[in-house]
Amino acid sequence: MKVAVLKETAPGERRVALVPEAVTKLRAAGHEVMVEAGAGDGAWLSDDTFTEAGASIASRADLVATADAILTVGRPDDSAIASFHPGQGVLGMFAPLGDRAFAQRLADTGITAVSLDLIPRTLPRAQAMDALTSQANIAGYKAAVLAADTFGRFFPLLITAAGTARPARVLVLGTGVAGLQAIGTAHRLGAVVSAYDVRPETKTETESLGATFIELTSVGPASGEGGYARALTDEERQAQQEELAGHIARHDVVITTAQVPGRRPPLLVTGDALKSMTAGSVIVDMGASELGGNVAGSRPGETVVTENGVTIVGATNLPSAMPAASSAMYARNISSLLLYLVKDGSIAVDLSDELQRGVVITYEGRVVHPALAEPAGGTDVDGASH
Amino acid sequence: MKVAVLKETAPGERRVALVPEAVTKLRAAGHEVMVEAGAGDGAWLSDDTFTEAGASIASRADLVATADAILTVGRPDDSAIASFHPGQGVLGMFAPLGDRAFAQRLADTGITAVSLDLIPRTLPRAQAMDALTSQANIAGYKAAVLAADTFGRFFPLLITAAGTARPARVLVLGTGVAGLQAIGTAHRLGAVVSAYDVRPETKTETESLGATFIELTSVGPASGEGGYARALTDEERQAQQEELAGHIARHDVVITTAQVPGRRPPLLVTGDALKSMTAGSVIVDMGASELGGNVAGSRPGETVVTENGVTIVGATNLPSAMPAASSAMYARNISSLLLYLVKDGSIAVDLSDELQRGVVITYEGRVVHPALAEPAGGTDVDGASH
Repeated sequence: MKVAVLKETAPGERRVALVPEAVTKLRAAGHEVMVEAGAGDGAWLSDDTFTEAGASIASRADLVATADAILTVGRPDDSAIASFHPGQGVLGMFAPLGDRAFAQRLADTGITAVSLDLIPRTLPRAQAMDALTSQANIAGYKAAVLAADTFGRFFPLLITAAGTARPARVLVLGTGVAGLQAIGTAHRLGAVVSAYDVRPETKTETESLGATFIELTSVGPASGEGGYARALTDEERQAQQEELAGHIARHDVVITTAQVPGRRPPLLVTGDALKSMTAGSVIVDMGASELGGNVAGSRPGETVVTENGVTIVGATNLPSAMPAASSAMYARNISSLLLYLVKDGSIAVDLSDELQRGVVITYEGRVVHPALAEPAGGTDVDGASH
Repeated sequence: MKVAVLKETAPGERRVALVPEAVTKLRAAGHEVMVEAGAGDGAWLSDDTFTEAGASIASRADLVATADAILTVGRPDDSAIASFHPGQGVLGMFAPLGDRAFAQRLADTGITAVSLDLIPRTLPRAQAMDALTSQANIAGYKAAVLAADTFGRFFPLLITAAGTARPARVLVLGTGVAGLQAIGTAHRLGAVVSAYDVRPETKTETESLGATFIELTSVGPASGEGGYARALTDEERQAQQEELAGHIARHDVVITTAQVPGRRPPLLVTGDALKSMTAGSVIVDMGASELGGNVAGSRPGETVVTENGVTIVGATNLPSAMPAASSAMYARNISSLLLYLVKDGSIAVDLSDELQRGVVITYEGRVVHPALAEPAGGTDVDGASH
């Protein structure tokens, strides 16, 4: 099979779908690998490193014309989609939920589109393909490091001749994969860490990482299906925001991690909560998006400072800020999934397979994913993970 | 005594000489404190926080006209110097070594100038006043956090379903105060840390922080006076550079900390060493200055990327990037020194006192510091501290 790696074109995207190690793996499985010129530049991987691993370097037009499987990180751009043709497969993280029109465009080309961000996370055999988890691990680490680099004081306790610096008080909202990694990293750096999640079953893991688990008295447990949280009612949300505000005011650094694919992220830090924070406090909003974020006034891709001196980092694509690590992990995810899908030299779609039913969004000219069949599809992962 | 705090005017300088806690301390000792409007803005300290501590807010003109002692972080600007008058004292970090002309300008005003960056570090009673140490502690921590935030991979070992990320290999050159703090911070984050210094007596402390001490075979010990290193000969320097290059090539992140007050910092990472590094490597050059840095091609205040993909951060004022912490520690240093100098309500200069002889640079219209008396003054702290 001919496997092609496209160069990413989204602004600020530095990842690449395969790294040389994964090229070697696919070649060992009998596949030919072609890489678009410059595809690895953002992740410090030159064309030479790919050719040394046995890939050939080609132009985008040649790749899309001849490839059996096209690998990307994010959505392919319009020019690539225009060249897709029936019988090809395209694998990437397409964030299709809530955007049926995009799925329909892919379907219209006749391509088989497979979205790695829809991997059923509860299937053990899917773990090595779970790009959402691998990238959330990176995002959580990066959020904590970024918060430390933005904060104007120390994370650890420091006792010196010029006085004692108390450790920073860090609050992590949402203890999914990203939240847990942020907790662990902030704790490593010496901060005193607290965390909150609507799913009380995450308390044990939070505490095992050295953090205090905050339990709200005004909102009960809200665990949902598949490890995710259920959506809160408006009354629950308001009670949560008000009770959280008291905790937020007592912290120096807040990292929020609540995302809902295809929908507006829940607001966890209100304008009133922001006003109660001390000047010099830092918030990293991992929920920041064009639809709004976890923090009032946060802007995706920008850092804003409130009137009372709180710095809010609108973190939209933290994995891309660690392109070498994120590309390496993503390459393992996507090559594992590709090898899983291939039977006898081509992608063999089998929608009776639970894993495939989770990730295949278009097939033979139709949008086939159950969550995209009806307009109101999508799962709610409120406060759960990232 | 009337004590005045000037607002810093150097580009990018966010520190302030006193924080409210230190205002309280000086008032308890019977002094009046005046703060220039907006002086604390960069460190998230509003004028209100100073007035709540008992300070008054005033204009620069009023402060300089009436103050007995003027406190600054860096050099006062021309307009302030033009208003200085005999009988006043000014305390700050003036980096006077190698710049006799600046010292003479201060002397011409008749002011008593006291430079905190010249505190004799070996005097136990001076420890609480040692601004160079307190700021180097902050710079070392910040350098490690900045390196982690710039690096495209993880510092810690991470074992996940999408593969194992090996820990970053960090090399710290110079194990003075800043170097040791950088070692400790990188180690906390999970990196595998090595360090080098020309002073072999720093090996034990380096190892106690979890790092491997690198001993060069081509250069012998070069310990000098007062805990500092002596200057290397040209032959020693070249041998050091060549042998270090082999170590540098095996590391992902290099933090260099060698500064020599008033002189060109030693070159530790040559152009050849840079070429041997892997794409994606990161160097933080804490020796970066207008005179040159520890790293070939580094530029003060800028981040440059070499042709082979090595990112070099020219770090010039890292303490200012943590303004809340650095101002708090500096405020303790400067208020301790001020209280030490004051006798019966005024600054009592006594050049027979070893501490005062170290810090007083001008007095009664003359440049009195021994290192500024002759043109070739200055101590060599090559590789020692920052």
